[in-house]
Amino acid sequence: MDQVVAENGVQQVELLFAVNDDHGGVIVEMKEPMDSKAFLSLLRASISQWKQQGKNGVWIKLPIGLVNLVETAVKEGFRYHHAEPHYLMLVYWIPEAASTVPANATHRVGVGAIVMNDKREEKSGRLQGKGIWKIPTGVVDEGEDIFAAAVREVKEETNIDTEFVEILAFRQFHKVFFEKSDLSFLCILSPLSFDIQKQELEIEAAQWMPFEEYAAQPITQKHGLFKYISEICLAKVDREYVGFSPLPMTSSFDDQVTYIYLNNHDLNQ
Amino acid sequence: MDQVVAENGVQQVELLFAVNDDHGGVIVEMKEPMDSKAFLSLLRASISQWKQQGKNGVWIKLPIGLVNLVETAVKEGFRYHHAEPHYLMLVYWIPEAASTVPANATHRVGVGAIVMNDKREEKSGRLQGKGIWKIPTGVVDEGEDIFAAAVREVKEETNIDTEFVEILAFRQFHKVFFEKSDLSFLCILSPLSFDIQKQELEIEAAQWMPFEEYAAQPITQKHGLFKYISEICLAKVDREYVGFSPLPMTSSFDDQVTYIYLNNHDLNQ
Repeated sequence: MDQVVAENGVQQVELLFAVNDDHGGVIVEMKEPMDSKAFLSLLRASISQWKQQGKNGVWIKLPIGLVNLVETAVKEGFRYHHAEPHYLMLVYWIPEAASTVPANATHRVGVGAIVMNDKREEKSGRLQGKGIWKIPTGVVDEGEDIFAAAVREVKEETNIDTEFVEILAFRQFHKVFFEKSDLSFLCILSPLSFDIQKQELEIEAAQWMPFEEYAAQPITQKHGLFKYISEICLAKVDREYVGFSPLPMTSSFDDQVTYIYLNNHDLNQ
Repeated sequence: MDQVVAENGVQQVELLFAVNDDHGGVIVEMKEPMDSKAFLSLLRASISQWKQQGKNGVWIKLPIGLVNLVETAVKEGFRYHHAEPHYLMLVYWIPEAASTVPANATHRVGVGAIVMNDKREEKSGRLQGKGIWKIPTGVVDEGEDIFAAAVREVKEETNIDTEFVEILAFRQFHKVFFEKSDLSFLCILSPLSFDIQKQELEIEAAQWMPFEEYAAQPITQKHGLFKYISEICLAKVDREYVGFSPLPMTSSFDDQVTYIYLNNHDLNQ
């Protein structure tokens, strides 16, 4: 907590410790246990001060251990913004003007990885009990680049090291969990090692297999997605299908290197 | 609440009303106000029953008006899963086995829209006070398709009706708000109407402008992203740059029509 030091008879006021964000608001990250009554009094004094300072959005991050403070914050006008297993982020918009609080995350991002060696053999894992050979797939971690997730998933499932080549296609799928959507990227990678060791329990077997054999499985004939995957892969191998490859780009706003994915072949024609 | 009807001396037990999900769990959607003590007793009886039934994940959706029940749920072992302004979703994983609770959403999805008429003029809006002409941009709503969001944003900003052509490139950007990321898709659309009416307050002006003029703005020369945008657009116009276009695909799991985005030109070569 901030403490305005008493001086020349000025009243001493305790406030919540807050840092400014880049958009005219403040962020309070609560860490230490606190009684809800003490929190209420600090919160009211702090909001009054932030109003005087012309602040707009007030963010409060409450770790799950401080769940006793959630009701107090909500009753003072805070709304939920997002949550992760171990914390809840609340936000309160002070101005009369329309809120510019950013929209919450709506999508989970996934990768499916095709690894093709120079014998046109595709590396697949067999799903336990299902008798289907499938390509490695997985969820992109928070903060992870798509190409890095594809390389990681292949390594985790088969112990093969790979180099990312490009994104062949992607699919947007709604209501994957509750109202949230999924964006999944079909990636092609080239192998840097060749000795497969299956890594995960849910995979019964993993092997290099001729692409035609993978594509000939009944499921790839029937279902929309699997059919597209095999058609795109055949087009990649046989007819110079070009996807999107990542190019690093330095942001003008900070030092973060971000990646733009584009048709680099056509751009450099 | 469920009520097991007393019959033949069987004890009457009140339980929370729950529906089964598709993965062996149950979903409780709380709607009516309830005292936290009454909730605790119902929750304990219900969990005991779900354990006996071999259920795995227990989801509880609490509207913000029932914030008084959050602490009770957390103290019984629930963790946060996700939150939106008006509700909090909590989850409790019953089995000893590792949790298969789905990862939370990690990305916000955005669109930037280039609308090109047949005079190679690009439709731009001028940012208020900044003197920069920019393409329409916006956030994809929950449950919205990327191509639909691009058409909507152009309509909202300029009142122009458009037909979606393709995605030219996309960019993944981390820590856009807190730990969450952004995936933004650069789209090209063709106009179905031509009379621009600027719609939104933050836009000072909107007009058709020659693409070369847009691309010649100092910002497009300097910054990585704007430079790529103009290079890709010029490649699209001059050198047959091919992006990803959406193809409808019927899911094998339900009746949802999903879209796969791919290089349709190369696929059909």
